[in-house]
Amino acid sequence: MSEVIQKAKLAGTTAPVLNRLTTKQKNDALLAASNALLANADAIIAANGEDLERGRNDGTSDSLLDRLKLDQSRIAGIAEGLRQIVELTDPIGEILETIERPNGLHIQKKRVPLGVIGIIYEARPNVTVDAIGLCLKTGNPVVLRGGSSAISSNKKIVEIIHHALETTAVPVEAVQLIEDTRRESVDVMLRANGLLDVVIPRGGSALIQNVVQNATVPVIETGAGICHTYVDESANAQMALDIAINAKVQRPSVCNAMETLLVDEQFAANHLLSIAEAMQDAKVELRGCPETRKLLPSAKEATEQDFATEYNDYILNVKIVSGLDEALAHIAQFGTKHSECIVTENKEHAEHFLQEVDAAAIYHNASTRFTDGFEFGFGAEIGISTQKLHARGPMGLPALTSTKYIIQGTGQVRP
Amino acid sequence: MSEVIQKAKLAGTTAPVLNRLTTKQKNDALLAASNALLANADAIIAANGEDLERGRNDGTSDSLLDRLKLDQSRIAGIAEGLRQIVELTDPIGEILETIERPNGLHIQKKRVPLGVIGIIYEARPNVTVDAIGLCLKTGNPVVLRGGSSAISSNKKIVEIIHHALETTAVPVEAVQLIEDTRRESVDVMLRANGLLDVVIPRGGSALIQNVVQNATVPVIETGAGICHTYVDESANAQMALDIAINAKVQRPSVCNAMETLLVDEQFAANHLLSIAEAMQDAKVELRGCPETRKLLPSAKEATEQDFATEYNDYILNVKIVSGLDEALAHIAQFGTKHSECIVTENKEHAEHFLQEVDAAAIYHNASTRFTDGFEFGFGAEIGISTQKLHARGPMGLPALTSTKYIIQGTGQVRP
Repeated sequence: MSEVIQKAKLAGTTAPVLNRLTTKQKNDALLAASNALLANADAIIAANGEDLERGRNDGTSDSLLDRLKLDQSRIAGIAEGLRQIVELTDPIGEILETIERPNGLHIQKKRVPLGVIGIIYEARPNVTVDAIGLCLKTGNPVVLRGGSSAISSNKKIVEIIHHALETTAVPVEAVQLIEDTRRESVDVMLRANGLLDVVIPRGGSALIQNVVQNATVPVIETGAGICHTYVDESANAQMALDIAINAKVQRPSVCNAMETLLVDEQFAANHLLSIAEAMQDAKVELRGCPETRKLLPSAKEATEQDFATEYNDYILNVKIVSGLDEALAHIAQFGTKHSECIVTENKEHAEHFLQEVDAAAIYHNASTRFTDGFEFGFGAEIGISTQKLHARGPMGLPALTSTKYIIQGTGQVRP
Repeated sequence: MSEVIQKAKLAGTTAPVLNRLTTKQKNDALLAASNALLANADAIIAANGEDLERGRNDGTSDSLLDRLKLDQSRIAGIAEGLRQIVELTDPIGEILETIERPNGLHIQKKRVPLGVIGIIYEARPNVTVDAIGLCLKTGNPVVLRGGSSAISSNKKIVEIIHHALETTAVPVEAVQLIEDTRRESVDVMLRANGLLDVVIPRGGSALIQNVVQNATVPVIETGAGICHTYVDESANAQMALDIAINAKVQRPSVCNAMETLLVDEQFAANHLLSIAEAMQDAKVELRGCPETRKLLPSAKEATEQDFATEYNDYILNVKIVSGLDEALAHIAQFGTKHSECIVTENKEHAEHFLQEVDAAAIYHNASTRFTDGFEFGFGAEIGISTQKLHARGPMGLPALTSTKYIIQGTGQVRP
């Protein structure tokens, strides 16, 4: 029996136990885990050192090594993250609906754990702790499959958390780490119907596409974001500049960053140059449509391929449009239904945009960078769903729950 | 370009239009469709006659022919079903959550259509109309792929509804019927990522397993039900008899019918014989565990395979258990997380059962046959979800919706 099957089954055996735990029991376990991570920070840093050394020998890029790296301050942040999850309201057991039927049946829709959750992710070892915290708080066993680059860190972290759980009501087996980092172990997870209730991929688009294309277990798709900001004719020029700069350069590597700026032609005539200058000052490479390049001859040409690319980098497409309708058509064609923004002082245009755009998060006069569980006030985030089923947009604790109907009768039978 | 791709794309083009329609516009379209079905009942019956004749020539079973058959009264029922959908509350546009952030961002979570919905189903042509009604009411374009046995009926029904929609605000293209009934057309649907937002299979377990195993588009799994009734020591004997008989014989062919009766050993000693007699009077074949066969020597032996089988027929497994714990263990091993029941007068046992069992619907003192959108008061049902993601149990109109976040700002950028 493969490691994945064995560990997924073992995780599953703890589901009824987790389902019975009180909020305090779950919180105590998270606090124990948090304390153990702090107390064993040196051991984690040593294990992480092995990953970093292997990475350097393999020629891993500096930015990836930075994601991988753990130090005292980062471990303190990770441990603090667990304590923040303790503070969140436990959604389990909530009665979402009560139905009284004419035949006397009393029906309650109750929030319950989702089941065994598989998380497939890449280099960042903080995801290991995040996922454990969010899954345990919602009463779900978790099967973790991190990337090979962080395997020493992940093994040490899970070892420490397992040890900490021994003194708590949470069974150690509720947290499983797949140590086989060959691609085959992912394939087995993706087809573990009956053992995994859902798989959530967290990582780059290649990882996510592999999961979506090959999974027979239910998946919550996360990730890809080709986000647009449309600056309308009536936009406040300073606001448009601030929002555009923030959406592009505050953190270009993430999914809610802007990839394409759509500008109304009237606004462009008066204000595009100042936006372009600010972008160039921020080291952003501009690629423009033909109209844009008339105003900004230094910009490269933006091809259809460019408009369909999630750069996650200091590159921005700029397209001048004849107005709201052309902006909406462009977004419908190239958007990935993640986050879209209109900057305008025209209320009708804003309402039309908010109604018409099909995306997880649609902004009027604010940066798309706010699409985030913490920024939405959820206090946590297991990822940002880009699908329409189950959960859409930033996913907090309720996204890790399901429901069941409980029906109380007095002997009713169906006529 | 295949028929499926072409029609799914065409359906998708109508999504923004449907999303804009008022409830009245959608209701008017459903009423027009309902009236058109009634006015053209003769043409539908004629087309249905072709299907029936082909079925008889192919040696189709009588029960399947009965499912396929349409007459004036069934068409009246189908048309009435559309009018019932008109009466239901339109979930679209509902604000599910409002969040005010300290930075002044105003966030609303709004209910929106799910998108293009693919329905893959078998012989019953009433599903064609049901699915059209439920999808249009929730603003979703629909791509229908019915079975070859009902293709003439389906084509005629869709032709009539298309014609009726011409005079309404609902675009004709919002309803697409795949006329290619080869298996390949299902395969294309299952991999139409980006064109279909979800596929819902409705039919037997082979159809559902094919969908689950091969789809890369999101799926809502429906169907399989190995449902148990556990009769506890303290059960009211008459109630236990009534519920067991109802759960087994009121309609054995459906997913919420009972397949296995679990009986506490004390209760069995006093009352199993009378339940067995009533089952045999109702032509139910009994298969028992060794203990059962001591009391009922005429029962066949129930094998492990039997306990894992959804008979959908007049066959019942009977197992005598030592009490609640053994019943729970049996359900955890063989249940399909559909509908489970405990009959007991012991409140603690009932609470333990309702808490512990992992299923879509869990009953105390009522027949599992109530797991149904109409019986739950939803006024409609697109199917019964047996998965934990998105929707669980009977699915009414809200199961055909998604959400989007609308964020209103005054120039906020992320620090």
